[in-house]
Amino acid sequence: MTDVTVAAIAAMVDGRLRGDGERIIRGLGDLRTASGDRLGFVRHQRYAELARATKAGAVLSAIDLQTPASLVLVEDVHVAYAKVATFFHPPPRAVENDVHPRASVDDGAELEGPVRIGANATVGKCKIGAGTVIMPGVVILDGAVIGRDCVLYPNVTIYGGVRLGDRVILHGGTVIGSDGFGFARDQQGWLKVPQLGGVVIEDDVEFQAGCVVDRGALGDTRIGAGSKFDNHCHIAHNVVIGRDVVMAAGCSVAGSATVGDRCIFAGLVGINGHCNVAADVRIGGGTNLFKDLNESGDYMGNPTVPLKEHVRMMRKLKQMGRESS
Amino acid sequence: MTDVTVAAIAAMVDGRLRGDGERIIRGLGDLRTASGDRLGFVRHQRYAELARATKAGAVLSAIDLQTPASLVLVEDVHVAYAKVATFFHPPPRAVENDVHPRASVDDGAELEGPVRIGANATVGKCKIGAGTVIMPGVVILDGAVIGRDCVLYPNVTIYGGVRLGDRVILHGGTVIGSDGFGFARDQQGWLKVPQLGGVVIEDDVEFQAGCVVDRGALGDTRIGAGSKFDNHCHIAHNVVIGRDVVMAAGCSVAGSATVGDRCIFAGLVGINGHCNVAADVRIGGGTNLFKDLNESGDYMGNPTVPLKEHVRMMRKLKQMGRESS
Amino acid sequence: MTDVTVAAIAAMVDGRLRGDGERIIRGLGDLRTASGDRLGFVRHQRYAELARATKAGAVLSAIDLQTPASLVLVEDVHVAYAKVATFFHPPPRAVENDVHPRASVDDGAELEGPVRIGANATVGKCKIGAGTVIMPGVVILDGAVIGRDCVLYPNVTIYGGVRLGDRVILHGGTVIGSDGFGFARDQQGWLKVPQLGGVVIEDDVEFQAGCVVDRGALGDTRIGAGSKFDNHCHIAHNVVIGRDVVMAAGCSVAGSATVGDRCIFAGLVGINGHCNVAADVRIGGGTNLFKDLNESGDYMGNPTVPLKEHVRMMRKLKQMGRESS
Repeated sequence: MTDVTVAAIAAMVDGRLRGDGERIIRGLGDLRTASGDRLGFVRHQRYAELARATKAGAVLSAIDLQTPASLVLVEDVHVAYAKVATFFHPPPRAVENDVHPRASVDDGAELEGPVRIGANATVGKCKIGAGTVIMPGVVILDGAVIGRDCVLYPNVTIYGGVRLGDRVILHGGTVIGSDGFGFARDQQGWLKVPQLGGVVIEDDVEFQAGCVVDRGALGDTRIGAGSKFDNHCHIAHNVVIGRDVVMAAGCSVAGSATVGDRCIFAGLVGINGHCNVAADVRIGGGTNLFKDLNESGDYMGNPTVPLKEHVRMMRKLKQMGRESS
Repeated sequence: MTDVTVAAIAAMVDGRLRGDGERIIRGLGDLRTASGDRLGFVRHQRYAELARATKAGAVLSAIDLQTPASLVLVEDVHVAYAKVATFFHPPPRAVENDVHPRASVDDGAELEGPVRIGANATVGKCKIGAGTVIMPGVVILDGAVIGRDCVLYPNVTIYGGVRLGDRVILHGGTVIGSDGFGFARDQQGWLKVPQLGGVVIEDDVEFQAGCVVDRGALGDTRIGAGSKFDNHCHIAHNVVIGRDVVMAAGCSVAGSATVGDRCIFAGLVGINGHCNVAADVRIGGGTNLFKDLNESGDYMGNPTVPLKEHVRMMRKLKQMGRESS
Repeated sequence: MTDVTVAAIAAMVDGRLRGDGERIIRGLGDLRTASGDRLGFVRHQRYAELARATKAGAVLSAIDLQTPASLVLVEDVHVAYAKVATFFHPPPRAVENDVHPRASVDDGAELEGPVRIGANATVGKCKIGAGTVIMPGVVILDGAVIGRDCVLYPNVTIYGGVRLGDRVILHGGTVIGSDGFGFARDQQGWLKVPQLGGVVIEDDVEFQAGCVVDRGALGDTRIGAGSKFDNHCHIAHNVVIGRDVVMAAGCSVAGSATVGDRCIFAGLVGINGHCNVAADVRIGGGTNLFKDLNESGDYMGNPTVPLKEHVRMMRKLKQMGRESS
């Protein structure tokens, strides 16, 4: 439990304080049930009423409101909430060396500083930065490099030739560095093309559970700093993803495609091989893209067109379904 | 091997018995090859002929037919087969305590009664109900609660804050309780929003392999009793799924969506965030739903419309493809 | 490191040698940076210029070109590259028995010959052929049969009743033999139908990471020799896949469907239950197939039509989106 004054919280989120700044806050709470050492928040005007009757010690809000609690007024309540919640619930981090007796750590493994390694984890001849947490059942093969303050949740697999930056988070079952899908057609059948590249994942990247990032065929598959991927995303060999990209669940980027900085893909978006997507492109859910998108903007559908055209297309299709002839 | 009379089987499935009820049955068999201690079944009229010449000791059928075997006539042969097959092949269940010496079980783990825990499984400070089977490679983190008679197949991951009811089955590699996908956009990039809720999975739920259910952002993600999910399903944070829901492979339900009781989704259905789907809705394969469905019925397609309209729409689209102008 | 003459490489790929055949080659390299003991390759006319100035000892090419290196001229540079790259980077193979002390191997396991088993792997009462490599975290349940020279990457799960041929490669997290999705609707809810069949995977099959192949309901699910599956593919119970089939990432084949020899599916293709796809069919990305395809050829889209008709359909849909009325 962490103790902090409301004034300190206001400073943390660049907020304006109204009311008593010396109150001690020990965690988050729901405005309806929270006690005096909790901070609640108001995300929408329609919840403002809850702040009026709350027993919480502090309220975080982007809109001015009446409350007996100390009020912290911010510009963006989502950003402020993320900061305060992370203060009270920081990601796991190793502060002292803690290798479980049931972990299997190769003599050749280089552990930079305090590292936590869970039961039944397997750590090969790899490098692991200080602060990193390796949970039970994780496998890291020889030749991987893991940065500082990373969190690898249970049953994650890291192949050799993978380099993770700092503060990378990988959720359960995610696989980084498996072979790209490369075969050549011979008369006898398909010949495997050895996948000799690696994977580079920059700082502050997060992959949720069940994702796969393939190693490059010759060069590296690359994921830019700050990018976030929801469950079941697939990144094929030689793909290059920019910075601060967001992909919702089940997105699939085929071989050698590129995705520019700050792109946002809704769920179940597929990018065909060798397609290039410019920076600041947003793509609607269920889109299968088969061409380059060279201009930033919103796109959607099959065929993939600017969002406005997609809406029009959908309206006409619905009409087609209603008309009997 | 379990011995049982045909009469006992007839009682088990509420069937009418014709022929010798004292015959002993020791398992299931194919009508073409089964010996006298086996029970075969006829699912369709076109297989009725096989029953006439079979050497099986008993035949299960919804249609009357000629057979030298003892006949068990039932209303629904699929239901009756499920019951008889489950009698001969019950799910794994721990009847005595059996913790593999290579399992890692925390001293703080509370094992209610007889529990089986396989090699290289990792069990944290959690609760596990009597009868439950934890297979090799499973990881259960601190703070999870597992009910009775559950089966966790290999390499399943359970995070803290997850509560499973009784008789829950999770297949290989499935992940329950990983972080929901929540980020706030700051000037510097995406800030992680800590995911502080849990996951509640009620009794008799089954997830096949490779599924992911995310923990809630503040409240819980909830899966209603008796619901069944095929491989590679994704359930995002704060989703609420009703009872007896069925989702085929690759279904994806985005954050805060709700799905009513007894819904049936075919494969690769995507439900957009915050969408509400009423009870008794059936959705055809490949549909990406972007709106509420407030009435029960059959829906399909992109755009998503009542099934009849979808069929019409598809017919017209095919025509468009054939016409050259 | 493997030493070989350029002449030996030319023989290996059925190539014509021009220049010094006695040069020693020790590995692959990029034409721009390689030293004299490396072999580079030219895949396209536009890279021919690089061969002119290279310091590599040998160049592999399908097109005649000027180069100071020894030139190996071949008909298909992709096939030749696959062969040479595999020579220098063969798949992992056990040449002596190497069972990690932290592996858990059942006394009833039958290991045919030299086998490698990694840390925290769990091997039940199963059979494993000579040469096979079982990486850390893999679980093989009782009753499975694994062929020779297979590679099971970390955290793979193999259920009982699964039979793998020789040289089968399974990447991280893939699950083979989990229950098929079979339930019968009773008044009380869904009854599980026990899945009593197995899985047969023939020689030279490769599944990339995160795939799932379900066991059959009564008979076996079957995957023909030489077939290759990218990440996140799903093969349901009783499916029969032919030889030399290729499926890109995220393909999903529902129960009892059949797919003929040499079919090629692009990413995110869904095949509905009981559909039959003839040999030599190619299906474009994102297609959800709801009917049989009885003739070889190229198909795509929703509705699924011959590729030419799909292109026409897409063109007209785009037009619909642009027109305001």
